[in-house]
Amino acid sequence: MTTLEITTQSITDMEVRAHDGHHASLRLWLRLLSCATRIEDTIRQRLREQFGITLPRFDLMAQLEREPEGLSMSELSRRMMVTGGNVTSIVDQLEKEALVKRQMLLTDRRSFTIKLTAEGRSVFTAMAKAHEAWIVELLSPLGASQQEDLHHLLGILKSRKHNPTQEKT
Amino acid sequence: MTTLEITTQSITDMEVRAHDGHHASLRLWLRLLSCATRIEDTIRQRLREQFGITLPRFDLMAQLEREPEGLSMSELSRRMMVTGGNVTSIVDQLEKEALVKRQMLLTDRRSFTIKLTAEGRSVFTAMAKAHEAWIVELLSPLGASQQEDLHHLLGILKSRKHNPTQEKT
Repeated sequence: MTTLEITTQSITDMEVRAHDGHHASLRLWLRLLSCATRIEDTIRQRLREQFGITLPRFDLMAQLEREPEGLSMSELSRRMMVTGGNVTSIVDQLEKEALVKRQMLLTDRRSFTIKLTAEGRSVFTAMAKAHEAWIVELLSPLGASQQEDLHHLLGILKSRKHNPTQEKT
Repeated sequence: MTTLEITTQSITDMEVRAHDGHHASLRLWLRLLSCATRIEDTIRQRLREQFGITLPRFDLMAQLEREPEGLSMSELSRRMMVTGGNVTSIVDQLEKEALVKRQMLLTDRRSFTIKLTAEGRSVFTAMAKAHEAWIVELLSPLGASQQEDLHHLLGILKSRKHNPTQEKT
C-alpha cells in the first residue's frame, strides 16, 4: 500500500466515523425528544381526563405550590418559559375557579403576587399525587439502577458546558 | 428488639424506600423533560435566527423530505402529532413561499398529496445540515460511548411495555 493509499484510506475512515457519529447524535436526539413527548402527552391526556385541567395550568400551580409566599407575574413567566400573555390568561382562568388569588404587595401597591388558595392547594395536592404515580408507572420499564444511570447521563448533558475541542478528537 | 419493633421498622424502611423511589422517578422525569426542552428551544431559536423558519415548519418539511411521493394531509397530521387545522396553516404558508406544492391524485381527484418543491428540497437540505451540526454540538458534553448508553436506556424506556408487576417488588 502506498503512502497516498494509506492517507486516503485514513481520511475516508475518519469521514465515515464522523458521519456515523453525526447520525448517531441525531438518532439519539430524536429518541430523547420522542420519549419526552410521549410521556408528556400521556400526562397531558390524563390530567385532562381525570382532573379536567390543562398541562400549563398544572405546571403553573406546581410553581406556586413550591412558593408559599407567592410569585410575581414576571417570575412566574420566567419559570414557566412561556410569554407573559399566556401566564396572564392561565392565572385569569385559575382565579375564576378560585384556585389562585392575586395579592397586593404591602411594599408596592401597584404590584401583586399570585398565590394558591387553600382550595387550590388541596386540589393541587390530589393532582400531584396522581401525577407522581403516573411518572413512576411510565418510567417503570427501567429498573432503579437503570434510572440512576439515565439520571447521571442526563446530568452530564444538562450541566456541562459544550467543549468545542472534543469535536476535533 | 421485639417482633413488633422489627415489623414497624421494616414497614417504615419500605415506605421510605418507596417514597425515595417515587421522588427519584419524578426527578428523572423533570431532568429528561428539561434536557429535551432546552435543546429544542435552542434549535427553535437558531432556526428562526438563521433561516427565518419556525420549528413546526421545519418539522413538516423534514417529514416531506423522507417521502418523495408526497404525503396526504391526514398522514402529515398523524406524523406531526398536531391537529389538522395547524398542518393546513403550515402547508398554506410553505405553499405561498413555493417550498411545498399540492398535487392532485390521479386515482382520486378530490384528494391531493403535499410534496416539497425543488426549491423546498434545496432549502431543506441546507437547514438539515445546520440542524445536524447543532445537534452534534449540543450533545457533545457526552462522549460517544455515553451517547450509546443513553440511546440504549431510552430505547428500553420507549419500546418496552409497562410491566405492572414490577411496581409491587
